[in-house]
Amino acid sequence: MSDISIYKKRVGGIRKILEQKKLGCLLITSCANVTYISGFLGDDSWAVITDKQVYLLTDNRYTEQARKQCRNCKIIERKGPMAAAAAEILLKHKGKKDIAVESSITIGQLQQIKKHLKKPLKNVTGLVESLRRTKDDTEIKNIKTAVKLAHKALKNILPKIKPSITESELAGYIDLQIRKLGSQNSFQTIVAFGENAAEPHHISTNRKLRKNDSVLIDFGAKANGYCSDLTRCFTVGKINAEYAKAYQAVEHAQKAAIEKIKDGADIRQVDQAARDIIRKYGFKPHGHGTGHGLGLEVHEQPAVASSVKDKLKAGDVITIEPAIYISGKFGIRLEEDVLVTKTGCKVLS
Amino acid sequence: MSDISIYKKRVGGIRKILEQKKLGCLLITSCANVTYISGFLGDDSWAVITDKQVYLLTDNRYTEQARKQCRNCKIIERKGPMAAAAAEILLKHKGKKDIAVESSITIGQLQQIKKHLKKPLKNVTGLVESLRRTKDDTEIKNIKTAVKLAHKALKNILPKIKPSITESELAGYIDLQIRKLGSQNSFQTIVAFGENAAEPHHISTNRKLRKNDSVLIDFGAKANGYCSDLTRCFTVGKINAEYAKAYQAVEHAQKAAIEKIKDGADIRQVDQAARDIIRKYGFKPHGHGTGHGLGLEVHEQPAVASSVKDKLKAGDVITIEPAIYISGKFGIRLEEDVLVTKTGCKVLS
Repeated sequence: MSDISIYKKRVGGIRKILEQKKLGCLLITSCANVTYISGFLGDDSWAVITDKQVYLLTDNRYTEQARKQCRNCKIIERKGPMAAAAAEILLKHKGKKDIAVESSITIGQLQQIKKHLKKPLKNVTGLVESLRRTKDDTEIKNIKTAVKLAHKALKNILPKIKPSITESELAGYIDLQIRKLGSQNSFQTIVAFGENAAEPHHISTNRKLRKNDSVLIDFGAKANGYCSDLTRCFTVGKINAEYAKAYQAVEHAQKAAIEKIKDGADIRQVDQAARDIIRKYGFKPHGHGTGHGLGLEVHEQPAVASSVKDKLKAGDVITIEPAIYISGKFGIRLEEDVLVTKTGCKVLS
Repeated sequence: MSDISIYKKRVGGIRKILEQKKLGCLLITSCANVTYISGFLGDDSWAVITDKQVYLLTDNRYTEQARKQCRNCKIIERKGPMAAAAAEILLKHKGKKDIAVESSITIGQLQQIKKHLKKPLKNVTGLVESLRRTKDDTEIKNIKTAVKLAHKALKNILPKIKPSITESELAGYIDLQIRKLGSQNSFQTIVAFGENAAEPHHISTNRKLRKNDSVLIDFGAKANGYCSDLTRCFTVGKINAEYAKAYQAVEHAQKAAIEKIKDGADIRQVDQAARDIIRKYGFKPHGHGTGHGLGLEVHEQPAVASSVKDKLKAGDVITIEPAIYISGKFGIRLEEDVLVTKTGCKVLS
């Protein structure tokens, strides 16, 4: 399937849903959703899907790029505010049906559009996201490439992990490798040494690596807009007995969760499987969810948490990242990226 | 002034505006605004200002950090969705006055809050932003530090700028230096060689630097959440006559714009001054604005553009970044960070 046919198919899927809901055009304001329907990898751009056309609204910083990347779209280079440009397109296409707008639009932006467009707008939640959840072959290939790029970056910097390097420096070396591989970070790299890893979202500091310290690295790369998200933990030197036991517990918990994964599996049971094992080892399980969907965004549908009353579906790509945090001592989180299949799953990382 | 007194003063300023507008509490959803009133440098957190209290709503990833950074706040570690946690606080404080919510909230989030809170919400635009526009001494100091960090990072990587390095690699080296200095990027570093610099927001590629190539680097660092934003242009080897003339034009345009800057100056005249000079040299001026406000966000109030009917005010920090883009050949943008003063301005970079 050539590029343009992928986007046409996706837009076709959206038009079908709009028709079912008796909605006219759809204003897309979420950056990842714009990428999904057009291939556009820039920023600050919106899209409008009408029954016949897809408009990409951007500004002169991105016009050139949009022309190259979005062959299924009519590119509109806006001069004034985004809301005015969107209203102008919507005005042209205001038929009898309601106009839909993504609920990720801010109320400020919506008010501006309403000023120009004297017609009620109907907001829709998760319409494009629900299609994005099930990954097609191209998307899976991109996520696999993003995983490979991250692996390669980590492998290349392993010799740098020596006592006296700081968290910030190590994060910087990983980012440099990701850049050298022609990729970008999928989020801000987390490097945490020793007790700092007990904060799940630690911001890397000038804390130096010491002998026998533990290391946590949470990082990811991008391929054609698709993200990988991996966490690796280890110690430099001797392994402390408590750390070794906790590591074993997290590894076992991750395995137990992954074993539960297949099309139709209850998400709460996947989450629970990891927590049960961690408790069995005598540790307190992670306060955050056991994982999350992964794709054009580093966090997307479905969340893998105890509060999620939903089932996994073949084509979901999720992370599985159980953890143990011991305040003042260390943190261990192990994270893999997993594709849900009809009969089970495939670990992509 | 100690840290906590700065935040108390800022919250006091907001309470005064709320009182004037006969509003009760304010729900703050913009990340930069949360930082402004609390000092919190994490993500995914909201704040509620009531007449007596400031609440910071975060999750267990950030609780530890919030306790350290936000000494003027009561920290609420939410377990469920953010909207439910916010509604719970607002419910407790729903007095006779209207509750205000920032218009940067999405309509999806607002609907969720409304489900829990059976009281109309009044949205406010730019309330905290209007206070953020005028920088105090601590903020100016932070921006100056952010500029210094960026300068130092660039200086450190100058020896790397040699033929055959790729755009991505060079961007990676700059980012590594920023990390090594204990800072973070204020936005994704742009490195563009030769013809690629004609795209104002070029994403760095594997394009190699060639002999006599031109280089554009647009980058910034952060200090305590405050951003710097600089663009530097030069050639490696011989300078082509057209490039030299365009460089002179942009430099002259920047100088002309900076000369217009002072408290009370018409923003359109500052923008115009740069464009007039570029036209005088026989080139087409930049399609984007001549600059933008700079602070906790890399783009904030005031925009410096031909459409902005506003005056500069002492305490504004703005970028001045005129440019010439010659499609297929090169791009030159020169960007400095400037503090507006009573009598003129101070170039911070």
